[in-house]
Amino acid sequence: MANAIRALAMDAVEAANSGHPGMPMGMADVATVLWSSFLKYDPADPAWPDRDRFVLSAGHGSMLIYALLYLSGYASPTITDIAKFRQIDSVCAGHPENHLIAGVECATGPLGQGLAMAVGMAIAERRLNAAFGDELVDHRTWVIAGDGCLMEGINHEAIGLAGHLGLGHLNVLWDDNRITIDGDVSLSSSEDIPARYLSAGWHVTACDGHDFGDIARALAEAAADPRPSLVACRTIIGKGAPNKQGGHNVHGAALGAAEIAAAREYLGWDAAPFEIPEAILADWRSAGAQGTAAHAAWQHRYAAAEPALRSALAGCLDDSLSQQVSAEAYIGALIAKPAKIATRKASENALEALQHAWMIGGSADLTGSNNTRIKSATAFAKGSYDGNYINYGIREFGMAAAMNGIALHGGLVPFGGTFLVFSDYARNAIRMSALQHARVIYVMTHDSIGLGEDGPTHQPVEHVMSLRMIPGLQVFRPADTVETAEAWELAIKAQGTPSLLVLSRQNLPQMRTEAGDNLTARGGYRVRAAKAARKVVLLATGSEVALADDIAAALEAQGIGADVVSLPCWELFDAQDSSYRADLLPADVLKVSIEAGVTLGWQKYVGDGLTIGIDSFGASAPADVLFDHFGLTEAKITPQILERLA
Amino acid sequence: MANAIRALAMDAVEAANSGHPGMPMGMADVATVLWSSFLKYDPADPAWPDRDRFVLSAGHGSMLIYALLYLSGYASPTITDIAKFRQIDSVCAGHPENHLIAGVECATGPLGQGLAMAVGMAIAERRLNAAFGDELVDHRTWVIAGDGCLMEGINHEAIGLAGHLGLGHLNVLWDDNRITIDGDVSLSSSEDIPARYLSAGWHVTACDGHDFGDIARALAEAAADPRPSLVACRTIIGKGAPNKQGGHNVHGAALGAAEIAAAREYLGWDAAPFEIPEAILADWRSAGAQGTAAHAAWQHRYAAAEPALRSALAGCLDDSLSQQVSAEAYIGALIAKPAKIATRKASENALEALQHAWMIGGSADLTGSNNTRIKSATAFAKGSYDGNYINYGIREFGMAAAMNGIALHGGLVPFGGTFLVFSDYARNAIRMSALQHARVIYVMTHDSIGLGEDGPTHQPVEHVMSLRMIPGLQVFRPADTVETAEAWELAIKAQGTPSLLVLSRQNLPQMRTEAGDNLTARGGYRVRAAKAARKVVLLATGSEVALADDIAAALEAQGIGADVVSLPCWELFDAQDSSYRADLLPADVLKVSIEAGVTLGWQKYVGDGLTIGIDSFGASAPADVLFDHFGLTEAKITPQILERLA
Repeated sequence: MANAIRALAMDAVEAANSGHPGMPMGMADVATVLWSSFLKYDPADPAWPDRDRFVLSAGHGSMLIYALLYLSGYASPTITDIAKFRQIDSVCAGHPENHLIAGVECATGPLGQGLAMAVGMAIAERRLNAAFGDELVDHRTWVIAGDGCLMEGINHEAIGLAGHLGLGHLNVLWDDNRITIDGDVSLSSSEDIPARYLSAGWHVTACDGHDFGDIARALAEAAADPRPSLVACRTIIGKGAPNKQGGHNVHGAALGAAEIAAAREYLGWDAAPFEIPEAILADWRSAGAQGTAAHAAWQHRYAAAEPALRSALAGCLDDSLSQQVSAEAYIGALIAKPAKIATRKASENALEALQHAWMIGGSADLTGSNNTRIKSATAFAKGSYDGNYINYGIREFGMAAAMNGIALHGGLVPFGGTFLVFSDYARNAIRMSALQHARVIYVMTHDSIGLGEDGPTHQPVEHVMSLRMIPGLQVFRPADTVETAEAWELAIKAQGTPSLLVLSRQNLPQMRTEAGDNLTARGGYRVRAAKAARKVVLLATGSEVALADDIAAALEAQGIGADVVSLPCWELFDAQDSSYRADLLPADVLKVSIEAGVTLGWQKYVGDGLTIGIDSFGASAPADVLFDHFGLTEAKITPQILERLA
Repeated sequence: MANAIRALAMDAVEAANSGHPGMPMGMADVATVLWSSFLKYDPADPAWPDRDRFVLSAGHGSMLIYALLYLSGYASPTITDIAKFRQIDSVCAGHPENHLIAGVECATGPLGQGLAMAVGMAIAERRLNAAFGDELVDHRTWVIAGDGCLMEGINHEAIGLAGHLGLGHLNVLWDDNRITIDGDVSLSSSEDIPARYLSAGWHVTACDGHDFGDIARALAEAAADPRPSLVACRTIIGKGAPNKQGGHNVHGAALGAAEIAAAREYLGWDAAPFEIPEAILADWRSAGAQGTAAHAAWQHRYAAAEPALRSALAGCLDDSLSQQVSAEAYIGALIAKPAKIATRKASENALEALQHAWMIGGSADLTGSNNTRIKSATAFAKGSYDGNYINYGIREFGMAAAMNGIALHGGLVPFGGTFLVFSDYARNAIRMSALQHARVIYVMTHDSIGLGEDGPTHQPVEHVMSLRMIPGLQVFRPADTVETAEAWELAIKAQGTPSLLVLSRQNLPQMRTEAGDNLTARGGYRVRAAKAARKVVLLATGSEVALADDIAAALEAQGIGADVVSLPCWELFDAQDSSYRADLLPADVLKVSIEAGVTLGWQKYVGDGLTIGIDSFGASAPADVLFDHFGLTEAKITPQILERLA
């Protein structure tokens, strides 16, 4: 059975003349034991909520999971998909992508993130277990990780968090092959890995990764221990390729015809490429079928559960609470009593009004600054898994990846905060939210020089625009308390789409004073219409919308008509029809953008108009001093517009 | 003496009504012992090459270093600067900035990075020690770090690297106050920190951070041990503020008049704000003066050194080799024998031709892919500190920060590689290169869908443009082997400016066939001039320049004149005078941008012209299939241009 994995891995990589045979061949024995004796899954229903999650953190070894899914009987991938590994018309992409294959729980490849997402899945499992009990929610998260994953900083954040939270249902199988791309691990690391995991509160065991009995013993030990477990699986990379195994050259290239022939002989594998001998396939299929009974038993328990509990679980899983969220009444109250508050505070208020039972918040140790904790929140912690607030610690990247895992697990809507400038630390996980279609809500506060005295290391300049460039990410920079509430409503409802809220530290006046539709849903809208003949359209976001309004007033005082357009979400604005966009951005006027960040990018909307912003690093001083210093005041901008009009 | 630090910290934060008194007050005793009995420095010459480096990794405690510099006798900051802490006209910014004050070795605040930069400084020290011996180079790097630094992933990468390299001259003083912003450390971490450091090959000791004798004992032990050392300094945050000390509220806000009055009484400190009693200042100044003798002794050894060695050290420190680098002859050879090679390979070739003795390379475990290792390179490793190549391991962020530290130490030009998509992992350190004016050269390969089968997790889409947004960073995307050599020449010479080379995996034809000036130095230039009447200007970078050339040929075949402009470096292009730019980008033609990445941003140059690119994630398939799939072929682009012209 393990050799079937090896054969598929080497043949698929050979056919593509591209890919990574070393890991699948090295971990074939461990994976076989896991998938035939430990992992709880039902190939007939990849979405079974109480299935174990399997995460191939070492995503370059994608042929391992494709082989496992095919062999154990999943409908996808087919053997044809596997034969077209890494081709445009195959779901068997170079690295596993969750949106292409149902059995792939998350997209992996960016090292360390699979393991960190697994921590999120294990958090979600404990949270739902606390709500629904062992009968309905009681599964494990199994991870295969390599030295690449273990060396990454994010891995250390993830294991620190998992150890602290005591996530005993998380088991990591470390492919301890002592090889990295550049050569032996000893070229770049001398860490005592077991000691490192023990220091983080983990259980650690080890096994010979090519001895089925020893593997089973170690996995059983990992499953039994109440702590998260690391199983050091001592393996030979590329095991089965007799002349190349054990070296770094087997990691990431096709073996070549001669070595494949040698491997077939070495393994005693005489089936043609992409053919699995019937008896072996039957063994695999019967291993896969073992989950049928467990699944049926779960369905029985589900059917027998208290109706209220059953309906609550169904509602949790189908996300109905999110879809019922409406900001309308809350915004009505805001309109009735306008307030000048920071959008980070407006965010907290909106969260209080809109949050539901399956949302789970947190912050990377900036709770009081990000305002992510509602009054009734309780901590999700070891011994209190019914909590709905995670103290992620100073681990921005780990937090973001854990939120991806929580979202992909299903049942929960994660949100978490840090300072916008430190979105840099988490950037690839934010990208992975979008690539994986994961509804994660990022609460990024202190969004410009408006944070003041902390200075340029803490002042975002390029961040808002560069986040807008991540495909599929909704970046919201609301102008006031109303837009903030609208953004929250959209973010909570956005199944399959991550959102990132960019919020001010400083107070902002309320621009919206009339109730009505969620205008943020259109991405941009006219917040002020010209009174005199329109010659200017001012485009702004966030804290600069009020500034644009002041400028428009100054222009009108001179008889120059000026619209103000708020553009809280470019992604949504670009999705509007062309007549809507053209109405807001007419061709025959001077368009001026104002945003306390880089100007590069705004030319998309203003053409050869004016772009007002900050194309250098910030400085340390009170916010109002900085806005003046960087030229972001009515007194400094209006004359530039007048000069351009002249 | 320690209370002088406390007084300045609380008074400066109070005057600003903003800042972080907790750390400076808590670590005042440790810092006093370090700066009076261990640190090697001479306030009269902050640039003395053999000084110890002091890194305040917990940069929010900036008043600690400002107080230390002032008290010990540095010319900057003055007491006036300190009284204007966090104001626009003071060098005492909210977080320490190396370019504002000579005694600040690096800018800190983004947590974990100070410690990681210190690893780079310790690397540089060992490298230069190997070249110049103990007489001329023999100094330590001392770090003060808090729990925030220790929890960050980058810290784990950094200590793994430091332990592996055996950097015994690196000593980290951990402010073990058991408090983070959100509350007790135990809210988010259960790690056994000493065990964690031991697992990475560090020496660990501890002390009572308020017992001068015990501190001195621990620091002596750290200095004596051949391994990098962690000193756990058990402290009380905000020590001296009798009602607030020990709690998280003393971390990041002014104490208030009442608590300051109480602290003055508690500490027996009756001097007015910003006044240091004469006797105490005299003690501090005499502590600072202790370095004078060591500095003089070093100058004596320097003067007495072999002339060749002295001259080599002088050349190393004044960077003369970098300034002598010229690509002219090498490019002449390229012109003589055109080659179609990947720019990552062209980069390796350029490096072979241009590298000098004080460059130090590396890769985050992608040496064979990034092509960063020249043939004669030897590994910088424990026991062979004369090497010039660092196996950074799978630690992108740690590598980038270490390179910042190497560059800021002085004497060396660091360069290092990873895949462009993983620039995300290192992004804030790249930003910090620019903010700190550090000449670091990033070698980022596999720059687009052109990497092919590895798929969207590995294919940069938004990266080139989003890196262009970092102020002060030179992003080069060369089109061929000649532009790559030109970019390397510019990057090596760019004192005070980081460069990032964006390089292809796939082969690219040589576009430049005539010798002459370094055209990349102008950021953009005409690589093909229209033959027929010019109606189109095609703008492209990297692999798309050859594509633009094909399109221009197709247009010319239909009688439509088309220029092709290569824009390898926007930062340099924008610095050209307006007539140069206008000549390349005339107003009266259709401008078309072509780049295998997001189109957002190109509107800056093409106005309402066409922007051809990729605004979604990539896919897994061979590169040529992908270029066709995403519409980046002559056959698919030319018709769009014709349609627009019509």
